[in-house]
Amino acid sequence: VSGSWSQKSQLEARKYCTVNIAASTECDGHTSLPEPVTWRLSHGASYVHVCTNETINGVECHELPDLKALGHDVPLVIDFSSHVASRPVDWSRVGLAFGGAQKNLGPAGLTLVVVRDDLLGHALPACPSAFDYKTVADHQSMYNTPPTYAIYVAGLVFQWLKRQGGMAAMEARNKAKAALLYDAIDTSQLYVNKVAPNCRSRMNVPFFLRDENLNDAFLAGARAHGLLQLKGHKSVGGMRASIYNAIPIEGVQALVDYLREFEKTQS
Amino acid sequence: VSGSWSQKSQLEARKYCTVNIAASTECDGHTSLPEPVTWRLSHGASYVHVCTNETINGVECHELPDLKALGHDVPLVIDFSSHVASRPVDWSRVGLAFGGAQKNLGPAGLTLVVVRDDLLGHALPACPSAFDYKTVADHQSMYNTPPTYAIYVAGLVFQWLKRQGGMAAMEARNKAKAALLYDAIDTSQLYVNKVAPNCRSRMNVPFFLRDENLNDAFLAGARAHGLLQLKGHKSVGGMRASIYNAIPIEGVQALVDYLREFEKTQS
Repeated sequence: VSGSWSQKSQLEARKYCTVNIAASTECDGHTSLPEPVTWRLSHGASYVHVCTNETINGVECHELPDLKALGHDVPLVIDFSSHVASRPVDWSRVGLAFGGAQKNLGPAGLTLVVVRDDLLGHALPACPSAFDYKTVADHQSMYNTPPTYAIYVAGLVFQWLKRQGGMAAMEARNKAKAALLYDAIDTSQLYVNKVAPNCRSRMNVPFFLRDENLNDAFLAGARAHGLLQLKGHKSVGGMRASIYNAIPIEGVQALVDYLREFEKTQS
Repeated sequence: VSGSWSQKSQLEARKYCTVNIAASTECDGHTSLPEPVTWRLSHGASYVHVCTNETINGVECHELPDLKALGHDVPLVIDFSSHVASRPVDWSRVGLAFGGAQKNLGPAGLTLVVVRDDLLGHALPACPSAFDYKTVADHQSMYNTPPTYAIYVAGLVFQWLKRQGGMAAMEARNKAKAALLYDAIDTSQLYVNKVAPNCRSRMNVPFFLRDENLNDAFLAGARAHGLLQLKGHKSVGGMRASIYNAIPIEGVQALVDYLREFEKTQS
């Protein structure tokens, strides 16, 4: 449990199975990721679930755990909703990956699921047919009426991703964008990001003003510069910059320029 | 069970409850609707499910059953996917109504659910949270990320429906459209619709050429006239004209003109 979304996932999973929380960062406010070797994995587990980018907490898993090397040859299930298509995935370590389209793929209302062939056909009896991935696969994702417009737009995005140079190029671009913003935060006296450097998200950058009385003035100034949606999630507070694939480095530079400008006006 | 969709529904329901098929028209190829007074309703049932328009079979329930008057004070659940917004609904008889948006409301990928307040909060433990209508209602339909574009377009369609004069006006228009087409079929020597007149769908009009050897020529001629998607569902065969809200009476007239023209060329 590395943040809000995996916390929700484990609660939902309790309806269907016995849940063992192998690791949780609740104690440090979800600002770190423990090394996989320290996880308390159950023997005989059906799968291990990780949310590989926590949007609200700004925590990203930069290297997928190698469960086999840890002595647990069970499927790794990843919720990669909020960093899908932002970087390559080591598919040799993944059993099932799922992600909502609305961050990096297209309009809300579409979910991408990638399932290893040998994991198809093991749905619980209570699983609705439209969510039994064997049924879905057998019907080429058209067992139920597919969300055609969202699929069409996702197709355009996939073509765009290829033209950008694919996943390796996207990763390089997203690394550069994130480095620009984290560096501006770390070198300032006013802003702070509390996430451990080895697991800082390249998609969602939460940060705080050391003087929270300035929050409203900061947000008003940001809006005046065309920098929107910077208020942090209510469960965390502070600010959050989401710099998904659709944000070019120029957008991040504009935010960095504003961060510096606002800090100067306060000194 | 009045056609393909309610047949699928009762199979799906068997995962979660004991199913009693109160009435089935399988024996006549789903071309009739038995009077509710003849239904073999179970005492103590949790609900009664009816698909009120069967797209594939072209069977529509023109008057919702009054279960209370039949001595069964249980919720009526209707799947009104394919005739939603085509006519008024007697909501006093409905416990829950659901329908996909893709016929009369907007793009595929959105489902409209109307639930009577007192029925909220009775989900089975195995029900996924996003499908527990109490959870959905408590979060104003935003417990999970909503399909924003589909909702936006549905909003435009709702405004359009109001400008047309609302449900009463849509019903009058759809009655006129359906009457025009059924009359052309019934008065011809070449075409036949096999559904009992009291339950013919105003949205989906399946029909057959008495000489099925003419099917390909009929479809090719239709395409040449810009009349598309007239081939019937593979489980039924023949032809099917879907005349949803988006089809104006001029579209139906164009089909009727072609029906007559094609029949003349064959005599």
